[in-house]
Amino acid sequence: MTRFTRRSMLTGAAIAGTASALAPLALRAPAQAAAPAAGKQAPGFYRYKVGDFEVTAFNDGYVKVPKLESFVVNQPLDAIQKALDEAYIPKDDVRVPFNPLLVNTGGKLVLFDCGFGDNGSPVQGALLANLAAAGVDPKSIDTIIISHFHGDHISGIRAKAGAANFPNAQIMVPAGEWSYWNDAGELSKAPEVWKGAFGGVKRVFDPIAKDVTRFEFGKELVPGITSVDARGHSPGHSAFVIASGNAKLMYIADVTNHPILFARNPEWRLWADMIPDQALTTRRKLLDMAAADRLPITGYHYPFPAVGYIAKLGNGYDFVPANWQSVF
Amino acid sequence: MTRFTRRSMLTGAAIAGTASALAPLALRAPAQAAAPAAGKQAPGFYRYKVGDFEVTAFNDGYVKVPKLESFVVNQPLDAIQKALDEAYIPKDDVRVPFNPLLVNTGGKLVLFDCGFGDNGSPVQGALLANLAAAGVDPKSIDTIIISHFHGDHISGIRAKAGAANFPNAQIMVPAGEWSYWNDAGELSKAPEVWKGAFGGVKRVFDPIAKDVTRFEFGKELVPGITSVDARGHSPGHSAFVIASGNAKLMYIADVTNHPILFARNPEWRLWADMIPDQALTTRRKLLDMAAADRLPITGYHYPFPAVGYIAKLGNGYDFVPANWQSVF
Repeated sequence: MTRFTRRSMLTGAAIAGTASALAPLALRAPAQAAAPAAGKQAPGFYRYKVGDFEVTAFNDGYVKVPKLESFVVNQPLDAIQKALDEAYIPKDDVRVPFNPLLVNTGGKLVLFDCGFGDNGSPVQGALLANLAAAGVDPKSIDTIIISHFHGDHISGIRAKAGAANFPNAQIMVPAGEWSYWNDAGELSKAPEVWKGAFGGVKRVFDPIAKDVTRFEFGKELVPGITSVDARGHSPGHSAFVIASGNAKLMYIADVTNHPILFARNPEWRLWADMIPDQALTTRRKLLDMAAADRLPITGYHYPFPAVGYIAKLGNGYDFVPANWQSVF
Repeated sequence: MTRFTRRSMLTGAAIAGTASALAPLALRAPAQAAAPAAGKQAPGFYRYKVGDFEVTAFNDGYVKVPKLESFVVNQPLDAIQKALDEAYIPKDDVRVPFNPLLVNTGGKLVLFDCGFGDNGSPVQGALLANLAAAGVDPKSIDTIIISHFHGDHISGIRAKAGAANFPNAQIMVPAGEWSYWNDAGELSKAPEVWKGAFGGVKRVFDPIAKDVTRFEFGKELVPGITSVDARGHSPGHSAFVIASGNAKLMYIADVTNHPILFARNPEWRLWADMIPDQALTTRRKLLDMAAADRLPITGYHYPFPAVGYIAKLGNGYDFVPANWQSVF
C-alpha cells in the first residue's frame, strides 16, 4: 500500500467520495510504513509430557497428494471427495504431513523416524531446522528408532552427500524390516512401485549395516519404550508404546495415514499399504485398543502436532486432537 | 541419569540380571551426557492466509477453570463432566486459552484483542513474547480492534506501570461497549462480579479516551475488516468478518467460549455471558451462518491456533480445527 503523502491527504476528500460511508475511519494516515508479510510459518515443534518423559512432536514438511484415486486405491473418487468435504479439506490440495517424534526419557534422547533430510522436495526435510528452533542439537540424540523402511521415515538418517545427520545415535530397526528390504529375492519379486525403496534402504543402511540394532516386537528398546507388532503397512512395520509411571503414549507410525481418510474408514486402502489385509487387521487391533484404553496416540501422518485420542465412530474411528497447551 | 563409567560398565552383567530380557539392547552406554529437558513450549503463533491477507494467531496463555459448576452455570456437574470426558479433557484441569489475532492486510497491521500484558497471572500475558518470537514489533501495529471490554481482551493495551504496549496503534472499540462501561449508572446497578471490570476499563481507557475510535456494527473499520453485531456476551460485543478477494474469516471473539462446552451445547450458559438470552440468539445466528457458508472462523477461547470450521451436530455445533500447515 502506498504510504500517505501530504498531497494524497489533501485529495482525501475526493477519495472518500468514492469509498464507503466509513471512510473517515479508514482514511487515517498509517502510523508507519506498511509492515511486510512474514511469509513463513512458525517452527514446527510442540512439547508435551508423558509421565516424566518430555515429548516433542516435530514436523518435517508434507507431500501434496497428486491424485486422490491413486492414493486411496479401493474407493471411487466421489467417496474420497465426500470424506474430504466433510472434513473441510480442499479436494485439490490434500496434504499429508510427516511428523518425527522426539522423546527425552531423562536418560536417553530418542528420535522416532527421521523425515527426508535433504533427500526430499523443497517442502520436505524441515526436521533439522525445526530441531534447531527447538534448541535440540542433532549430536545429542542417543537413539533413533525406526518404524519401517519407507523413504519418508529413513531418508533423513543420512544426507544426500553421505554424512550422518545424527552422528552419535544408535540406530534401532525392526528385524522384519531389515530382513525384507535386504533380501535380493524380495527385491526381484517386488512390484515396480517399490523397487526404488530398496535402493533407498541400501543408500541409508549399507555404510552402517554392522552398527544397526535389529529388534523384535514386544521388546523394551530403551527403558519405557516398547515395540508393538504393527505389520501390514510394510512387512516389519512397528508401533511403539512409550510409558513413564502410569502415563502412556502409543506412536502408531503408519497404522493409518491421514486419519480423516483411513481412521474414519479403516477399510480404505492406502496405495502404500504393502500387505493390505494385514494392515487392516493391525489398524483395527491398535485403534480398538487406543479407544478402549483412552490411550493417547500420535501418528506420523496425522495433522501436526499429531497427538490426540481415538474414539469409535460408526464403522471407524474419530481422531480427537489434544488441545494445544502453552504450559505443560 | 548417571553417565556410564568404566566401573559401572564392568558391573553391567549384574545389572542386566535384574533388568528385562532386552537388557543387551538397553544397556549400551549413551553416546553423551543425558540431554536436559527443555521444559518450555514452542512459541504460540501460527500463520495462515485469508486471500492476500496474512493472519497470525497468537496465544496469550490460559486460565484454569477453578470450579466447573461456576463456569457453566445452568448445568449439573455430571453433564459438564460427561462433555469433558467425551472430549478427552481432564475434568480437573480444564484450561481456557486466550488467542489474540493479528491481520496484515498489506496496508495495515491490525491486532484483534490484546490479552493481559503484565496484568494477569504467570501463565498469562504471553502475547508480547510470542510477538517477538514471530518477529513482530509492537510499534509496527497500526490498529487495535477490540471485541469487548472484558479484562482478558483489553488489559494488555497498557502495562501495569502505565505504558502503552502498542504505542502507534489507533484503538477502535465497539460504541456500545464504550457507552456501557463508561456509564456510572450501569456501574451502580451491575452485579458485584462485574464491578472490578469497570475499574479495568477506567485504568486502560481513561488516559487515552480522546484518541479511541468508537465503531457501530456493520461498518468497514479497515479495508476488508467489518464489524458484526454479536451482542449478548457483553452489551456491545462485536464479531468481525475479515475478507480479502473471495476469501473470508470470521473472528467470533466470545460468541462461544471453549467450543467443546458451548458450541456443542449452545444453551449452556457461561458465567461471563452478561445477557444470556441475547448471547444464545447471537451464538445460533453466527454459528448457523458459519455452518451454512462453510466460513472459516476463529475464536478467542478456542484451542490454539483456534482456526477451523463449524459443522452442525445434533442440537449444537462441532468445531473442526483446520489442519496445521508448514507452508501456507
